[in-house]
Amino acid sequence: MSREVIIGVDLGASKILSGIGTSDGQILQKTKQLTPHGNASSVIDLIADNILEWIKIAEAQHDSVKGIAVAVPGPVTYPGAVIEDSPNLGWQRVEFKEELSRRLGRPVVVDKDTNLAALGEYHFGQDRKYTHLLYLTVSTGVGGGIIINDRLYHGWRGGGGEFGHMVIDASGAECSCGRRGCLEAVASGTAVTKQIEALIKAGRGQNITACGCGSAVGAPELGKAARKGDPEALKLIKELGQNLGIGIANLVHLFNPQIVVIGGGVMIGLGDLLLEPIKEYVGEKAFPLHRRDLIIETTTLGNDIGLYGCIAAIAHGYKEICDLGDV
Amino acid sequence: MSREVIIGVDLGASKILSGIGTSDGQILQKTKQLTPHGNASSVIDLIADNILEWIKIAEAQHDSVKGIAVAVPGPVTYPGAVIEDSPNLGWQRVEFKEELSRRLGRPVVVDKDTNLAALGEYHFGQDRKYTHLLYLTVSTGVGGGIIINDRLYHGWRGGGGEFGHMVIDASGAECSCGRRGCLEAVASGTAVTKQIEALIKAGRGQNITACGCGSAVGAPELGKAARKGDPEALKLIKELGQNLGIGIANLVHLFNPQIVVIGGGVMIGLGDLLLEPIKEYVGEKAFPLHRRDLIIETTTLGNDIGLYGCIAAIAHGYKEICDLGDV
Repeated sequence: MSREVIIGVDLGASKILSGIGTSDGQILQKTKQLTPHGNASSVIDLIADNILEWIKIAEAQHDSVKGIAVAVPGPVTYPGAVIEDSPNLGWQRVEFKEELSRRLGRPVVVDKDTNLAALGEYHFGQDRKYTHLLYLTVSTGVGGGIIINDRLYHGWRGGGGEFGHMVIDASGAECSCGRRGCLEAVASGTAVTKQIEALIKAGRGQNITACGCGSAVGAPELGKAARKGDPEALKLIKELGQNLGIGIANLVHLFNPQIVVIGGGVMIGLGDLLLEPIKEYVGEKAFPLHRRDLIIETTTLGNDIGLYGCIAAIAHGYKEICDLGDV
Repeated sequence: MSREVIIGVDLGASKILSGIGTSDGQILQKTKQLTPHGNASSVIDLIADNILEWIKIAEAQHDSVKGIAVAVPGPVTYPGAVIEDSPNLGWQRVEFKEELSRRLGRPVVVDKDTNLAALGEYHFGQDRKYTHLLYLTVSTGVGGGIIINDRLYHGWRGGGGEFGHMVIDASGAECSCGRRGCLEAVASGTAVTKQIEALIKAGRGQNITACGCGSAVGAPELGKAARKGDPEALKLIKELGQNLGIGIANLVHLFNPQIVVIGGGVMIGLGDLLLEPIKEYVGEKAFPLHRRDLIIETTTLGNDIGLYGCIAAIAHGYKEICDLGDV
């Protein structure tokens, strides 16, 4: 039987996840490859080839392609879905949407990865629809996506939702952006690694390093050590949770959402160990009006959340479900 | 000639400003009275009398009353525009809108003062309409209002825009809300007074106290001393501007507005002395995408901004210009 299928690509700094799915949020097939080190043009070529391959697969199965969406690292500006100065890709002002659709000869939806993740969570992560949903990713960095009044929020030029660059501790750790105490600087995979390294330098953290292989230590080793009951690891996770709690309480005071969903490698890896101190902080410190009936959860979509977002964007009509108007 | 007029009331913790205006944003008459210390019921009685008086004045001039709006201190929840736990008024769960409209026998629009101020600024403060406008008030406390995609944003239950309770310095000054380093705790009229008191306690700040009469010192004395060139006063204002700059850069990264308008007694009193360090911080530290073409201004509506907001809410059809649907 012929179906309508959707092609999604999640472009990350280290890998490209792509796949094919259906409008009801089923991923039928997916594949992962390394992001080549190279200029934007060669990466866009690769993605175009990738998509053409998926189109062939669909056609071989007599499926029709409803649409194509690509999640890219931000910031992305509108109109045009241009990738601005991307620290993760090392790109500057790449007209990604135009370049890719020219190569494919058909339109594509392009949006920031965390924005599409928020759409994925809104449509496929929850049993019901929450009109106001914030998605926070805690990974190497920290980012976000905003659903308000059932639509994806971009802001004036697409820069909305940079949750990682909200200063919460003005005299805190240095951030890659040049400021101090951004949420990303105190509560991300990178921050965790630095914190463990500082422990090691101070002659401590042996149980954490013992959980790693070789010299690399980060959130996975932290989680392993904590699950074995190591007090230093548990303390670091608690502090991480409190810092994320401060950030989330801030967001909750600003946006007053119904639900905050947290994803990203660090969050998914640490799971309830990290979710509990976050919920404890927000449950105690946010205003009663804002915390009452507020839901805070870890995403159930795992690392495929960007792909689910691509599917959602096409399945539900991107123009209809975001605030950009005629993109 | 008979006109259509609008009645507005701005209920503050210390005074009630009320007046009558026209849909094009002219305030025809206004009056100010002290907010009585008493229970909610007696204050609502007074406001009702006040409005009935304005209705009489309108009728005597053969004007018809298009509508009535009241700005109240937050937080306000929806549906019902209920004043929750208000620290400024000392009220708890007052069904303000229902109580007032029952007394008047006609509908009233009720919203948080800073929300209506944002509407006032959007409609009457600017020559043109900016689709994404943030309003920040720096007064005794710090609050905000959010216009996105040309509509006033409330969030799920009306709690959006609590800019004052965004932590920017987790190890900073204690806030009345029990946390540390909220924007209000480090950059408000109350914060300024505490900072001056700390100076005095350390045997300094003589030029600032010399600008006051009696023991009370705050933002007005700070401004006077700074205008006379006092270096301590100038330093305090610069720090205040940097803290506000951190808060505004955060907001700009989250909401990506076109314009940020700042009002409130402290801002209006200090004027460019305070605006300059704010603009300097945001212009240097916010992301290029977010700061490019961003406008940061002091409101031109002064202390009447809440009244202008009431007029805007009625003139432009409150339901049409906010996100609450059928309020």
